[in-house]
Amino acid sequence: MQSKKPQDSFVVMSELVLPNDTNTLGNLMGGRLMHWMDIAAAIAAQKHCNCPVVTASVDNISFNTPIKLGYLLTIEAKLTRAFTTSMEVYLRVYGEDMHTQYKYLSNEAYLTFVALDHNSRARKVPELIPETDREKGMYEDALRRRQVRLILGGKMKPEDAGELRSLFIKE
Amino acid sequence: MQSKKPQDSFVVMSELVLPNDTNTLGNLMGGRLMHWMDIAAAIAAQKHCNCPVVTASVDNISFNTPIKLGYLLTIEAKLTRAFTTSMEVYLRVYGEDMHTQYKYLSNEAYLTFVALDHNSRARKVPELIPETDREKGMYEDALRRRQVRLILGGKMKPEDAGELRSLFIKE
Amino acid sequence: MQSKKPQDSFVVMSELVLPNDTNTLGNLMGGRLMHWMDIAAAIAAQKHCNCPVVTASVDNISFNTPIKLGYLLTIEAKLTRAFTTSMEVYLRVYGEDMHTQYKYLSNEAYLTFVALDHNSRARKVPELIPETDREKGMYEDALRRRQVRLILGGKMKPEDAGELRSLFIKE
Amino acid sequence: MQSKKPQDSFVVMSELVLPNDTNTLGNLMGGRLMHWMDIAAAIAAQKHCNCPVVTASVDNISFNTPIKLGYLLTIEAKLTRAFTTSMEVYLRVYGEDMHTQYKYLSNEAYLTFVALDHNSRARKVPELIPETDREKGMYEDALRRRQVRLILGGKMKPEDAGELRSLFIKE
Amino acid sequence: MQSKKPQDSFVVMSELVLPNDTNTLGNLMGGRLMHWMDIAAAIAAQKHCNCPVVTASVDNISFNTPIKLGYLLTIEAKLTRAFTTSMEVYLRVYGEDMHTQYKYLSNEAYLTFVALDHNSRARKVPELIPETDREKGMYEDALRRRQVRLILGGKMKPEDAGELRSLFIKE
Amino acid sequence: MQSKKPQDSFVVMSELVLPNDTNTLGNLMGGRLMHWMDIAAAIAAQKHCNCPVVTASVDNISFNTPIKLGYLLTIEAKLTRAFTTSMEVYLRVYGEDMHTQYKYLSNEAYLTFVALDHNSRARKVPELIPETDREKGMYEDALRRRQVRLILGGKMKPEDAGELRSLFIKE
Repeated sequence: MQSKKPQDSFVVMSELVLPNDTNTLGNLMGGRLMHWMDIAAAIAAQKHCNCPVVTASVDNISFNTPIKLGYLLTIEAKLTRAFTTSMEVYLRVYGEDMHTQYKYLSNEAYLTFVALDHNSRARKVPELIPETDREKGMYEDALRRRQVRLILGGKMKPEDAGELRSLFIKE
Repeated sequence: MQSKKPQDSFVVMSELVLPNDTNTLGNLMGGRLMHWMDIAAAIAAQKHCNCPVVTASVDNISFNTPIKLGYLLTIEAKLTRAFTTSMEVYLRVYGEDMHTQYKYLSNEAYLTFVALDHNSRARKVPELIPETDREKGMYEDALRRRQVRLILGGKMKPEDAGELRSLFIKE
Repeated sequence: MQSKKPQDSFVVMSELVLPNDTNTLGNLMGGRLMHWMDIAAAIAAQKHCNCPVVTASVDNISFNTPIKLGYLLTIEAKLTRAFTTSMEVYLRVYGEDMHTQYKYLSNEAYLTFVALDHNSRARKVPELIPETDREKGMYEDALRRRQVRLILGGKMKPEDAGELRSLFIKE
Repeated sequence: MQSKKPQDSFVVMSELVLPNDTNTLGNLMGGRLMHWMDIAAAIAAQKHCNCPVVTASVDNISFNTPIKLGYLLTIEAKLTRAFTTSMEVYLRVYGEDMHTQYKYLSNEAYLTFVALDHNSRARKVPELIPETDREKGMYEDALRRRQVRLILGGKMKPEDAGELRSLFIKE
Repeated sequence: MQSKKPQDSFVVMSELVLPNDTNTLGNLMGGRLMHWMDIAAAIAAQKHCNCPVVTASVDNISFNTPIKLGYLLTIEAKLTRAFTTSMEVYLRVYGEDMHTQYKYLSNEAYLTFVALDHNSRARKVPELIPETDREKGMYEDALRRRQVRLILGGKMKPEDAGELRSLFIKE
Repeated sequence: MQSKKPQDSFVVMSELVLPNDTNTLGNLMGGRLMHWMDIAAAIAAQKHCNCPVVTASVDNISFNTPIKLGYLLTIEAKLTRAFTTSMEVYLRVYGEDMHTQYKYLSNEAYLTFVALDHNSRARKVPELIPETDREKGMYEDALRRRQVRLILGGKMKPEDAGELRSLFIKE
C-alpha cells in the first residue's frame, strides 16, 4: 500500500443555498451544512483510501456568521493524518455573497473516518506523508486532537493524554 | 420572562432510514444524522425560548454502531442549561431494527443555540431550572462544556478555564 | 407469537415545516402531511409485527386548521387492533406555533397496514390486547371502521355490515 | 363567475418511481403516493377556481396492488362537483411496468379542496356543469359522499343524512 | 419486434413549481426543468422500447419566458424516430399561471436515448411508423438533427453531413 | 464596470452520486446531471456579473460513459465570453470511481445565462478578457456557437451566420 500526499485527497465542493436549506429567517440551517461537510470530508477520505468509509467522529464545530439564501457555499477538504484504519480530514467552509463579492471563512472542522472493506470491517489505510509546513503542523497536532476525542468518547483517561495535558500545564 | 423546566423543551423525533439517507454500504450517512440532530435540537431550543434560534456550536460527536437502511431512528432532545442568550441542548440518538426488536443507544451530543429576535439579533432567553438529579448534574457540567467550546473556538485561554482544569489537575 | 399492548407500538414523530413542504400561501401541503402520517403509522405497525408492512388503506382525513411554515408538527401513532394479517393504527396530528406556544389538534386518522414476509406475502401478526378504557373503546370500534372500509372498497355489501347498520338504524 | 365543465380541470401527472419513493421491499410507499395524489388533485381544483386552494379532506383510499421501483405512475384528476366554496376532485391512479407493458388501475380516490382568496379566507367557486353520463353520475353521487364526510367529521348526524341512509335501508 | 406509432409513446407530466425548484428571484431553475424534461422523455422512450434506457444527448434548449413559483408546468413527450438502438424524443414544455389562466409554450427540445438490455448493453428497438403529417415531417427532420449531433459530438465531419449542408447551401 | 478574467469565475463542484440520483440500472440520470451542471454554471456566471442570472440556453450535450452509484462527480465551470447582457459558460464534467482511482471526462457543455437586475430585467455585464491561449481560442469560438444558438432558436437565418458557414464551406 503506497503512501500518499495530503494534496491527493484535496476536494472542493460548491453549493448554492436554496430555499429548503434555510430556516424561517432565511439562513442556512446548521444541520444542512453539517450534512454537506460530512459528504465533502467523506470524499477526501475515499480519495485517500480508495475504499468505502464511515464517519467515526466530528470535532467541535462553531457557527459564527450566518450563510444566507442564495449565497455560495464552498467547502475545501484535505487529509491531515492517517492512523491505522482511520483518517482525520480538515475542512474549511466559506460563505460568499456573490453580488457584493463578500467572501468569508465560515467554519473549520475536523472529521474522522474509518476505512471499510466490503464486509464493513475496518481495514488498513495508506500512510499520509505531509509536504508543506502547514501540512506538517496539522499532522503533528492530529495526535492531540485524537486524544481529545478518545477522552470525550470515554476511551482514554485525561491523565494518560500527554499531548493534551501540555495545553493546560506548562511544565 | 418566566423560568422553565427541562421537561418543557423535551422533544422526540422518529425517522425511518430511507434509501437516499444511506451510503453505498446501506448505512445511514453521518451527515444526514447530524442534519436530523440539528433539527431536533433546534425544536427543543425553540420550545424553551419561543423564538427563532440559530445553531451556535456542536460538540464532539462519535459514531459507533452503524444505523442501517430501514431502521428506526429516534432522537430525544432536552435543554440542559440556559445562558444569557444561548441554550445547551442534550441529545440521545437511538437506532432500532424493528424486525429483531434490537434497540441501542447510537449517539449522545450537545448542541448550543442562540436565541434571535426578528431582526436576527441575539436576545435573552428564560432561565432553566433543573428538577431531577440527572438534570441538575447536566446543568452543573454545562459550564465545563462551555469552557471547552470557548477554548476550542479561540475565545478563552486554557489557563482561565477553571472548570476544565480540574479534569487534568487534581489539586 | 406473543400478544402485545398498544403502548408497545406507540411512536412520536416531530417535524419542522420547511419551505418545500408548503404551498404558495405558506401552509403545509396536505399531501406532505399525509406522507409523514403514513411513515409514522408504518413505524407503529412495524413495532407491533416486527416485519415489513405495506399500507392497505387510509380512512377519511379532514384538514381543518392550516399548519404554517416554521410550525412544529407532532404525530402520535398507536395500534388500535390487530386482525389476522392486518393492523389498524390511530394517529393524532398536532400543529404548534412554538413562538406563541399555541398548540392544537390538527387531525386524527386511521390507517391500516398488512404485514408481509420477505417474499411480500401477507403473514400473521401478534394479537393486540388493549389495556386502558380508551384503548378498549377504540379496539371495539375498529370492527365498525373495518366494515366501512370493506363496503367502500366493494368487498362487503352494506346489508351485511351489522356493526355499521347500528349507526343508522336504532333497532 | 362563469360555469365550467369537468374537462376544463382535467390533469394528467406522470411520475417515475425512484429509489427514495420506495420502502425496503422496493415498493412505492403509500404516503409518497398520497403526496402526489394531493398535488394532482390540487392542480385540478386550481384549474377550476383559478385561485389558491387548500386540501379539506381525503376520502378512504385503499391500496391493493403494489407499485414497484422503476414503474410509471399515472394520475388523472378531474372535478366531479363544485359546492359553494369547495370542490370535489376524482382521481384515478395507474401503475405501469413499461417493460412488460402491464398497466393496471391502482387506486381511485376523492379529495375535496376549499378555494381561498389571498387573505386565506374561503371564497366562492364557479359552478360545474357535468357533460357526459359518467360525469353526471359522479356529480349526483357527490352529495352522498359529502354526507359521509360530514358525518365522519362530526358535523352531521347520521339520521340527517338522507342520501346516505338509502345505502343501508331500502325503503 | 413489432413496429409502433408515435402515439404509443405519448406521455404528459404535470408538476407544480415548489419553493425548492426556484432561484432567489422566484423563477424555476433551468436545471430543475431539464431534470423533469429528461424524466418525461425517458418515460416516452421506455414506452416505445419496453426496456431500460439511458440519455444519449440533449439538443440545444433555449429558455425564454420564466416559469414562476406556483405555476403549473406541463411536459408532453413523444417519439419522433427510432434508429437501430436509439430513439429521438420531442418535448413541448408549457408554463401556466392557473390564477390568470395564462398558458404559454415555454420550451421545445429533442432528447435521444439508447435502449439497454439488462447487462447495460445497447439493444435493438422497434421501428417507429409516423402517422400524421406533422409526425412524418418530424420523422424526416430527425436525420438532419442526428447529423448535427454527430458533428457536434466529433463523430462526423461537416462535409459528410449531406442533410445539414442543405441548410447552408441551396444547390 | 471593471473587466474580469475567466479565472475569476472559475468554480469546482463535487457531488457524490446517491441512490435517488440513479435510474434502475444504478447509473446517474441525465437530468440529475443537467441539474447540477446548471447550478455550477449559474455560480460561474454570478461570480462574473455579481448579480442574479437566469439560464438562457444549453448547447447540445452528449452522454457517453455512465456515471455509477457511489462515484464522485466533479464539475468545473468557467466563463468563455461575455456579451452585452449574457455570458457563455464552459463546463467540464468528470466521473471518478474512487475505489479504482479511475477518473474520466464524462461531458463538456456550453450554457448561456442572462444577467438580471432586481426587477428581473436584463442588465449589462462586465467585459471578459481571456488570458491563456486556450481561453483566447474559446473566446473566439464563442461567436460561432452563438450563431448556432440564434439559428436553432429561429432568431437568425443560416445565410447570415458567417462564422458558422465556414464550418461547411471552405471558401
